Amino acid sequence: MRSTTGWQADGATRTLRRAELERRELRPDDIAVRVDYCGVCHTDLHALQAHESDAGDAGDASARGLVPGHEFTGVVSEVGSAVADFSPGDPVAVGNIVDSCGECRMCRAGQENFCREFPTLTYGGTDRRDGSTTLGGYSREYVVSHRFAYRLPSGLDAAAAAPLLCAGVTVWEPLRALGVGPGSDVAVAGLGGLGHLAVKMATALGATTSVISRSLDKAAQAHDLGAQGFVVSTDPKQMDEVRDRFDVVIDTVPAPHDLAPYLRVTAMDGTLSHLGHLGPVTVDTLDLLIGRKKLSSAGSGGRPSTAAMLRFCAEHDITADIELLPSSQVNTALERLGRNDVHYRFVLDMSDLD
Amino acid sequence: MRSTTGWQADGATRTLRRAELERRELRPDDIAVRVDYCGVCHTDLHALQAHESDAGDAGDASARGLVPGHEFTGVVSEVGSAVADFSPGDPVAVGNIVDSCGECRMCRAGQENFCREFPTLTYGGTDRRDGSTTLGGYSREYVVSHRFAYRLPSGLDAAAAAPLLCAGVTVWEPLRALGVGPGSDVAVAGLGGLGHLAVKMATALGATTSVISRSLDKAAQAHDLGAQGFVVSTDPKQMDEVRDRFDVVIDTVPAPHDLAPYLRVTAMDGTLSHLGHLGPVTVDTLDLLIGRKKLSSAGSGGRPSTAAMLRFCAEHDITADIELLPSSQVNTALERLGRNDVHYRFVLDMSDLD
Repeated sequence: MRSTTGWQADGATRTLRRAELERRELRPDDIAVRVDYCGVCHTDLHALQAHESDAGDAGDASARGLVPGHEFTGVVSEVGSAVADFSPGDPVAVGNIVDSCGECRMCRAGQENFCREFPTLTYGGTDRRDGSTTLGGYSREYVVSHRFAYRLPSGLDAAAAAPLLCAGVTVWEPLRALGVGPGSDVAVAGLGGLGHLAVKMATALGATTSVISRSLDKAAQAHDLGAQGFVVSTDPKQMDEVRDRFDVVIDTVPAPHDLAPYLRVTAMDGTLSHLGHLGPVTVDTLDLLIGRKKLSSAGSGGRPSTAAMLRFCAEHDITADIELLPSSQVNTALERLGRNDVHYRFVLDMSDLD
Repeated sequence: MRSTTGWQADGATRTLRRAELERRELRPDDIAVRVDYCGVCHTDLHALQAHESDAGDAGDASARGLVPGHEFTGVVSEVGSAVADFSPGDPVAVGNIVDSCGECRMCRAGQENFCREFPTLTYGGTDRRDGSTTLGGYSREYVVSHRFAYRLPSGLDAAAAAPLLCAGVTVWEPLRALGVGPGSDVAVAGLGGLGHLAVKMATALGATTSVISRSLDKAAQAHDLGAQGFVVSTDPKQMDEVRDRFDVVIDTVPAPHDLAPYLRVTAMDGTLSHLGHLGPVTVDTLDLLIGRKKLSSAGSGGRPSTAAMLRFCAEHDITADIELLPSSQVNTALERLGRNDVHYRFVLDMSDLD
């Protein structure tokens, strides 16, 4: 085994502690990545919370090892014997999926994120070959099949590009699948890690973009990101003015909420796409029927669209707006993220792990 | 007022009784229609049930007057002074909407069925000018604005065409809005009044069409209607074989039910469109997320698409498969419809009201 250093849950609390970690020896199709920057995703927080309660309930020593992190950039440090598409020194990026069955209808369609056998997650997943639990990118080295590493286009800042690998592709896929382009009228509900990238990408795709937010606080930021419109969701008059207006509503609000107000502002034959997994949601079919509106959901991305998204971002100079912290401040970052005190994404600088 | 004869609820039970009815004198934009054939829709049954309980609860004499019927064909018998597009003797058809505000965004888009001020329904609606309650097509004469009457194309059997005006346009709109055509793979869940028309229309639009039904009983009928595939929904193996397959699933099942199995057979980026108003439905966002599937709903139609649907049906020789009964058997028809004993739509012959 190879050894590296990372930030690992201690099992009793949600605090991460610096720990020595093991990585597998390179398989023929693997590459080793020196992780330079890793984004801090809401999922990391949820995983730590779940992990904490699991560990508390079960007292299971094996549950203590969580290492979060599934959007990171770095440099190839070593390649397996069968790897031809990467060389040591190449800048690369890795997202939240590191393997899939490769054979199902979804994998064959390049949608490994929807793999019928469930994709192997970058952390907390089960490796398809040795059955071990994957450890995430809050570490100085990651070993991954070359198939799930992406060349980081030159010109993209490596730190600010890290969040593209999860937040970025999660907004990119529905925007593309719903045909957003010139002439589209798009609203983005919620202006956080996902939302700010949705505004940038929708605008770069040529859409007229508006932000729907709970208060006026973020109006200036929304404008700076490229949004032409701003709607305060708690103001019934403003919401009524945009009734039946938006071809696509990208709903990035990360907690369960009533979808009816967002369906109401969706245009006839338009789509409300909620990002991430809200769990069960209830809608009145009349809210869909009146205007033949569609409710959809999206999350993560397949290999082809991840690569396409990175090319698009390089062409349009799109990265996340980040707060870069040394990785030793990971617990502060998580604590602040828990109270939405972030502008718009934390990225950890892993160089302090050397 | 004009007088005519029809079938009216007695207020105490859901039985309809022959009664003298009043119709308004023709306004300048009205036409009078001699109703020859009127389809019996599930909505009629629901309205009678609601009416029965309303009358029982409230003892409200005004609630006793329900006359159902909102898909009918006949002949123009008289035209108002401002009507230029119809003449006495013209064959016409009327659906479930007889007026709308005409000014809202939906009306301006030709989607009067989604009128923001709510369209005036053919029965049980409130007339926008005199405030009276509309009485439906289970009667020998109907008076309607020429705007909501449609020329019945020659070549369409007037009796079998009657159900096109509600059931027909209700399946037509989502098929068209979802872009069904050559190359589309469409499934129709439920093979009743709506379902059998969906199969005919989807097939005529060029789609490969399959029927999803609870048992094999209707396999031969489905094939005769044009379906190439047949899937038994209660057979997990068959449902698994069509997982992620259909670009469009038209769900005509008229009672609340779990949508998850139908989302499962919807293709990536495909749409499950439920017809009619199920009330609140709960879906797990993961069932939408995995495959970016869409949930939609549809019902009724606007004026332009109703006219287009009639033209399409005339070109492709599509009408409903009906059981034609004298209108005096209306109570039998409703009772049989209540236990789904109909193949596929009852139509009442109104000539016995003379």
